[in-house]
Parts: sequence; C-alpha cells; structure tokens
Amino acid sequence: MNAMATPPISHRLAEAAVALFDENGYDETTVDDIAARAGASRSTFFRHYRSKEDAIFPDHDTLLAAVDARLRASTADTAIVAVTDAVRLVLAHYVQDAEVSLRRYRLVGRVPALRDREIASVARYQRLFREFIGTWLADSPDAGLRAELMAASVVAAHNQVLRGWLRAGGTYDPSGPLDHALGYVIATFRHLERPQDGENQVVVATFDRSASPQAVMEAIQAHLQQRPV
Amino acid sequence: MNAMATPPISHRLAEAAVALFDENGYDETTVDDIAARAGASRSTFFRHYRSKEDAIFPDHDTLLAAVDARLRASTADTAIVAVTDAVRLVLAHYVQDAEVSLRRYRLVGRVPALRDREIASVARYQRLFREFIGTWLADSPDAGLRAELMAASVVAAHNQVLRGWLRAGGTYDPSGPLDHALGYVIATFRHLERPQDGENQVVVATFDRSASPQAVMEAIQAHLQQRPV
Repeated sequence: MNAMATPPISHRLAEAAVALFDENGYDETTVDDIAARAGASRSTFFRHYRSKEDAIFPDHDTLLAAVDARLRASTADTAIVAVTDAVRLVLAHYVQDAEVSLRRYRLVGRVPALRDREIASVARYQRLFREFIGTWLADSPDAGLRAELMAASVVAAHNQVLRGWLRAGGTYDPSGPLDHALGYVIATFRHLERPQDGENQVVVATFDRSASPQAVMEAIQAHLQQRPV
Repeated sequence: MNAMATPPISHRLAEAAVALFDENGYDETTVDDIAARAGASRSTFFRHYRSKEDAIFPDHDTLLAAVDARLRASTADTAIVAVTDAVRLVLAHYVQDAEVSLRRYRLVGRVPALRDREIASVARYQRLFREFIGTWLADSPDAGLRAELMAASVVAAHNQVLRGWLRAGGTYDPSGPLDHALGYVIATFRHLERPQDGENQVVVATFDRSASPQAVMEAIQAHLQQRPV
C-alpha cells in the first residue's frame, strides 16, 4: 500500500473499482457504484477517468510523464541504458501498490475488455521508448528498426518479470529478476550496436617457433586491440 | 484486393465498415449502417463480429490459426527461424488487401478505440510466438525471458516494416524490407542463443612453416567446427 496518509481521489476511485469488479463482477458494476464507494460524485469520477475500464489503471498518465522526465534527465552513455533505467519506475509503481496490482491482475485475466485496455497502456511506454531511442540513434543505419527492437525488448523484459511476480502473488522482491532481465537486454543490444565487432573474426598469426608464450600472447593482444571500425 | 470473385460476407462487412467510418465518421456509424451497406442483416453482422470496432479487423482469428498451423508444420532448425517465417503470413495478409489496409490505417490513427483494438490484436500474435518459443526452449536457462524477447522482437520488426509501408501509402513491395528486418532479428538472437559462441574466442594454431595455404585453411576450419557447447 501507498505510504501516504490520505490517498488522492484518483487512487481511492481505482481501489473502489478494483474491489467492486472483484466482488460483484465487471459487467455488474457501474460508474455510480464506484463513485459511491469512493465517497465521490459521478462528475468527480469523470474528471479522472473516461470509463469504468479506465478506472483500474489509475496512474498511467502520471507514470508515463515520470518515465519521460527520467529519460530526459538521463546521463547514460547509450539509449538502451537510459531506457532500461527508466522502465524501473514502472515496476516500482506496481510493487509499491502490490495489493491493488494483484487484484487487478486477477481481474484482467478474466475480463477481455480490461486486458485490451492494459495492453494498450503498455503500448504507450513502448512508443515513448521507441521515440526516445529513435531520436538518440538519429540517422545511423537501421535507426528505426533498432529503436523498435530495443523498445519492444525492454518492455518485454519488464513484462516478463512483472508477470512472474504477479503470478507468484507478489511474494518476493522482483528487483533482482528485473536487473537480470534488463542486463540480458543490454548485452543483446550491445552486440547489435556493434554488429561488425568480433563475432566472426579469426586471428591468424605467425611466430617464430622459438618465441616464448609471453611473446606470443603480447603479439596476439596487440593484434586484438586493432579493432575493426 | 482479394482475387476471389465473391468475397465472403465477413470481408464485405469489413469493407463496408471501413468505408462508412471513413466517410461518415466512426462515432456516427452504427452496426445497422454497416450491415445494410454490405447487404446483410444485423444478426449476420453479430455472427461475425462482436462490435463495430471489431469489424474493421476482419481476419485475425483466421490469420492467427494459419500462423499457428505454419508454426506447427515448421521444419526450421531454431524457434526464431520458425517464427520469423510464420510472421510473413501476417504482412502478406495486409499487402493482399492493400486498399482496406490503407483505409484502416488512416482510421486507426484517428480513433483511439480502434487503435486499442488493433494493439490488442497484435498482442495475440506475440503471445502465440512466445508460447511456441517457450515450448521449444523448454527448460533451458532463461527460457521464459528469451521467449518473451524473441517474440516481442519478431513482432516489433514486422510492425516496423508494416508501419513504414502503410505510411508510404503502400506504394512498394515490403517483402525486401521484411527480409532485412527479420534477418536482423535472427542475427541478434543467434548471438543470444549461443552467448559463449565465438565472440571472445581467439584461435591459436601452429603449422609447419612449409604448410600450404590450403592446409592452413583446412586446419583452421576443422578447429572452428569444434564449437563450444
């Protein structure tokens, strides 16, 4: 649960929506029911959410803005590192409000309209990442394709960790698994960023038969430092 | 356009929906309008589609089944190659019905409800791919994560090519760009599949100073074929 003493009204509405969908069913719950449970009016509800399926995903706009701000403030050396750093905010948000996240997860699995809504929300992060990376890569070869692949992979890694955590009932700290998954993505794209770098190279060198192992090693090291462009 | 003389009713309904959304606006068009334009009844409409936003995405169920069948029949050596092969069916479907695809693309950009619907459809392919790859990788390390990343990347590569083609008004054959993008994905994951394979290896071999270039080459080739596990 959030540590704040009085959660904002948008948050209370979201909690009320999740609770009612869970207890009475999604189809049976109206916007009026949700507003009443949160101690708010119908017009207050519509100031915060467009529809009842919106209400259980409370903070996507705020969170997206926070992710965007983190990207813009990043001092990372590469776009992929900046993005893998920023996506941590999203997981942290789910974990911070674990009880709502878990109830929502169970609901989303049962109600196709909510699942579609969630998938569409996730697509907004992916788009933000794609545009950020695309700007970073600018006119380099295949920039559009690489931006698309990196953004999709970061989101996929995040979702895989999040889904595992939700499926396990939120019983552990997922930050270790997230580090692992994002490290995997960074390693993958470090390679992709330098496609000419090393993979298929073979060193062929000649030495005097009497050369010492040390001399052989130094000659090979000198060779390997001449990296291709 | 489809080469068939009489398109199936589901297809005629989809064409009618796209045309009416385009001409009169999405909000202004009713299911009755769509059915009337396609020369069908309201009940026929609801036998094929759940709602008016479903109607402009005609063949996702059929296409998903075709993609699934292609995966199951695949004789590819790796999961990623099987999946990159199967995803070609999806692009081919858009290209075959280019006129409807282009009108739909313009609509989807304007109507958020349709955009969400399209994003949710795409997620179904990604899920199918993820499950296929996950089964293939079975209990190998990080199988779940790798399946997620590969599935997301194949779908992302496909979408990047599709989006470029749609944005350009469908004025070229996108199969070349798709080959390029999928080749990129395969190369990326070939690396990921065998992270120990080659990148940081150096071949050190000794030869008789009198060895012919041919003998040196054969010895090196034999060495390189002893791939690490």
